[in-house]
Amino acid sequence: MNKKLVLNTLSKIGMIEAALMLLPIFISIYYHDYITMKVFLFTALLTVLINAPLLLLVKPVKGKSMTARDGIAVAALGWIFLSVFGSIPYYVSGQIPHYMDALFESISGFTTTGASILGDVEALTEGMMFWRCLTHWVGGMGVLVLFVALIPSDKKSSSLQLMRAECPGPTVEKLVPKGRSSAMILYFIYGGLTIIMVIFLLIGGMPLYDSVCHAMGTAGTGGFNVKNAGLGFYNSAYIEGVVTVFMILFGVNFNIYYFILMRKFVGIYKNTELKVYLGTIFASIAVIVANTLQYGVFHSFGKAVRYASFQVGSIMTSTGYATADFDQWPELSKTILICLMFVGACAGSTGGGFKVSRVIILFKTAKRNLRKAMHPKSVNVVKSDDRAIDIETVHGVSCYLIIYIMIFFISLLIVSFNNFDFGTNFTSVTACLNNIGPGISRVGPMQNYYALSDLTKSVLSLDMLLGRLECLPLLMLFAPSMWFKKLY
Amino acid sequence: MNKKLVLNTLSKIGMIEAALMLLPIFISIYYHDYITMKVFLFTALLTVLINAPLLLLVKPVKGKSMTARDGIAVAALGWIFLSVFGSIPYYVSGQIPHYMDALFESISGFTTTGASILGDVEALTEGMMFWRCLTHWVGGMGVLVLFVALIPSDKKSSSLQLMRAECPGPTVEKLVPKGRSSAMILYFIYGGLTIIMVIFLLIGGMPLYDSVCHAMGTAGTGGFNVKNAGLGFYNSAYIEGVVTVFMILFGVNFNIYYFILMRKFVGIYKNTELKVYLGTIFASIAVIVANTLQYGVFHSFGKAVRYASFQVGSIMTSTGYATADFDQWPELSKTILICLMFVGACAGSTGGGFKVSRVIILFKTAKRNLRKAMHPKSVNVVKSDDRAIDIETVHGVSCYLIIYIMIFFISLLIVSFNNFDFGTNFTSVTACLNNIGPGISRVGPMQNYYALSDLTKSVLSLDMLLGRLECLPLLMLFAPSMWFKKLY
Repeated sequence: MNKKLVLNTLSKIGMIEAALMLLPIFISIYYHDYITMKVFLFTALLTVLINAPLLLLVKPVKGKSMTARDGIAVAALGWIFLSVFGSIPYYVSGQIPHYMDALFESISGFTTTGASILGDVEALTEGMMFWRCLTHWVGGMGVLVLFVALIPSDKKSSSLQLMRAECPGPTVEKLVPKGRSSAMILYFIYGGLTIIMVIFLLIGGMPLYDSVCHAMGTAGTGGFNVKNAGLGFYNSAYIEGVVTVFMILFGVNFNIYYFILMRKFVGIYKNTELKVYLGTIFASIAVIVANTLQYGVFHSFGKAVRYASFQVGSIMTSTGYATADFDQWPELSKTILICLMFVGACAGSTGGGFKVSRVIILFKTAKRNLRKAMHPKSVNVVKSDDRAIDIETVHGVSCYLIIYIMIFFISLLIVSFNNFDFGTNFTSVTACLNNIGPGISRVGPMQNYYALSDLTKSVLSLDMLLGRLECLPLLMLFAPSMWFKKLY
Repeated sequence: MNKKLVLNTLSKIGMIEAALMLLPIFISIYYHDYITMKVFLFTALLTVLINAPLLLLVKPVKGKSMTARDGIAVAALGWIFLSVFGSIPYYVSGQIPHYMDALFESISGFTTTGASILGDVEALTEGMMFWRCLTHWVGGMGVLVLFVALIPSDKKSSSLQLMRAECPGPTVEKLVPKGRSSAMILYFIYGGLTIIMVIFLLIGGMPLYDSVCHAMGTAGTGGFNVKNAGLGFYNSAYIEGVVTVFMILFGVNFNIYYFILMRKFVGIYKNTELKVYLGTIFASIAVIVANTLQYGVFHSFGKAVRYASFQVGSIMTSTGYATADFDQWPELSKTILICLMFVGACAGSTGGGFKVSRVIILFKTAKRNLRKAMHPKSVNVVKSDDRAIDIETVHGVSCYLIIYIMIFFISLLIVSFNNFDFGTNFTSVTACLNNIGPGISRVGPMQNYYALSDLTKSVLSLDMLLGRLECLPLLMLFAPSMWFKKLY
């Protein structure tokens, strides 16, 4: 890999993070909380002090463009550094006294998982809480996308390699020919939707601070709670409705919004992923409503719809907010939610999971293969949106599935060292690898990840990063040929 | 499909099953149990009465050879008919009074799952118990293989299509050019090993009847208990040792035994699957021994080795015997066993699961893909046993994984209607789809499947058949083009 170029890019990302820390500093000043202000000032200065020399001294060779391998290295290392620097305020302020917990919380924030080790989130200061939700927002659309949008590059290919490495989904397309413009459009739509959500929450009577925090958490499909009672604190069907709708909106491929802006409505009608995504949400809500009513969890149809639609939206988009303790729901409802955790949101959205488009490709591949087994001589291609998907994409999705399953089982084995029940172990890995947040049993929506061992927290932290970066970049850090030229 | 040929072949399989029923008739006569004798006589006559007219009246068109599609149809329908006829004695005798239970037990027998709805197996008469274990033995090597071995065919391709449809694993090879000879060699090795096992059990002081039943259950990697206390009844480390060794032996690809018979030892040393299979067994035993000792489940190293090796052998080969209630073991040990359930035994053995060779291909495909992502222009092939595996095999294994996961999740959703805990639901599907038998919690080794609903039992029955036939044949029964010529 081009070490100078990678280091230089990493130092720029560090500078962006230091700049982002100005926001919690302002918030802390507003709330006259000078201790938290000093913590962030210290962290920001530390981040600058470490990154500035790299930025000034390590100059990449001019003319050498960024390769796929360099992009992957920046994505993997960038996300790790980002999380490490981001964890410092939690630890230094003493608000999360154990370092592994602080790192877990930071990774959970940036990867938009929303799994927390905090039992009492309201004990956090305003500045700290804001930082926690801000990590969701930045992590949702991606820090490399932000980097590409903010910092002009003289190399044409760099922006594309970076955006690809951070969002390697099967259907990520450039919106416009220039990578930087694509990144800017994405952040424009993202920011716009977030602001609209804040306005809707304000209308519902939620305080401005809470509205901004929740909007950032929803936009990034993160799911950190701002109140100990979660969104249930506000006890408002309107607020829950707004969050439900926006969670589902942020789980949609952002290309759709670009099409809407460009008035290209044909691209929306023909989008199979969108149809399957919305269809799955409605079908799941319907079954859970029937199932919870049958078991008497809710006593009115309206309540069942309210809680079921919120929870399905929250889990399918990998947000992970909870307004009800779904761990107490009947087993079928719980199992549907666990299945939805694996499916996840649309590719090109801020949501996690395996992604709807990948599931569609898997279904079609299976169908094609069944047909081929029956008629060995026929020619079958896998199609999506009326276009044939090339065999490399099909193969790539299958391989992703294989790697995903292997990571899942290896994590499950290590996590089971905790000796908690199977439901806890299985869903903690599921919830972290898919960037959801809550699972069932001991990691249920009304519980937290505090009781797990440091070993488990390390594995789950790695799973969150693997899930967010879709496995490949992090795994490649372990390949010798990533680091040494001669070996490959 | 060639309906006449398929019907004709099915009727011949029916006749073989009627002939197999002579064995429990003899056993019943020996034990002076004339009621059970009459039950089997009745069932045998009924089976003949239904199949004889088909055999005599439906004559296949001469010269038309069996296609892949016909072979698949025979396998799928043959196994369903076999199970239905096989369930009649349980029901008619009143020993299993509920019909769905009788069918579940019959399917569990033929598919060598060994999941039982019986709480008190010792209440079965000797003839019935023998039939139950005989279904394991016939199902283990396969009834179509038996058919090919027994009945001469004038069509060259038939035997191959039938054997392929029943054992579609990725590495099933013909032992000798002629299909019928291959089938005979397989049954010769299978029978020989079974007899050797009977002798070893007799030496350990087990009664002849019990020895034969256990040997048949072990050979087919079935796992039906003969005593309520299972093999723990004999309280003999020697007997448990013999069963452990033979379970592991029957989980080996039968090609290996053919190589031994032919003195082609090179094929054994070079066999990657065998190495991985044995390596996985030893590694799992080592970890479980350490883990159970740590949690004080066993108080001596010897006991831990005895119980751990038995259980690992039993689960990995999909036999499902239990000498200890592994549901009480620490979570890591349980999770290892659950992971082994998915891995399964070697391809071309009598064991179930995903098969070791497929797992190897998946690992290698993942590795190749990681390398390809880093060096997009390099050429990488997936190799096994120093030979390159063609892309169609790799693709086939990936597709099998996809179909397998889909069946798994759909089954899990339906089974969760039971409203039992997640561990029960998850492992009941795991244990049935992989033809193991016991799971954890409510379907743990000291429990049984009686309490599940009829809907769940139907789904699990289907899963057992899907697992034994490796999905494709049964799924194809639902394809219209399987039945109608014009549609494809």
